[in-house]
Amino acid sequence: MNMIRVAASSRSTAVAGAIAGIVRERGQVDVQAIGAGAVNQAVKAVAIARGYLELDGIDVVCIPAFSEVLIEGKERTAVRLGVIEIHKLIESKAS
Amino acid sequence: MNMIRVAASSRSTAVAGAIAGIVRERGQVDVQAIGAGAVNQAVKAVAIARGYLELDGIDVVCIPAFSEVLIEGKERTAVRLGVIEIHKLIESKAS
Repeated sequence: MNMIRVAASSRSTAVAGAIAGIVRERGQVDVQAIGAGAVNQAVKAVAIARGYLELDGIDVVCIPAFSEVLIEGKERTAVRLGVIEIHKLIESKAS
Repeated sequence: MNMIRVAASSRSTAVAGAIAGIVRERGQVDVQAIGAGAVNQAVKAVAIARGYLELDGIDVVCIPAFSEVLIEGKERTAVRLGVIEIHKLIESKAS
């Protein structure tokens, strides 16, 4: 499973580049963020990545969900943004 | 155009209820947030709304984008989350 972890200090353009790279290769990627600052960077990165991918004729959507993760033995609630090519999503719904 | 404005102080469950209500009626809604705290609440609200709508057999995705808005005469960059039913999205792509 491909997952990109985003922090509040992550540069959104750098994360966007990583998202676009994995989507081009595999059609989807999960982006995980904990805390408001990190979630904000993650969402901005997805918006920027949509622009990068549009230039390649690739249209992606985002599916937000919660995810429980263990950080140093403590359970935290992360936000997970599933980023997936629309064509791939339609195929997965049809099957 | 339907738009829900979210603040850092907005309750994500209340926003989720509003999102689900408009999607049930019209199939889509835009959610706008300015600043990390507001974006975080907006994304959490979309994740919660997905759960509400799933119970009705409605599957939505999210399309994040930037949007320039005027607040008290100053230009600010907002994050806009387009929330749309998958079926409606597929129809709009096909046409």
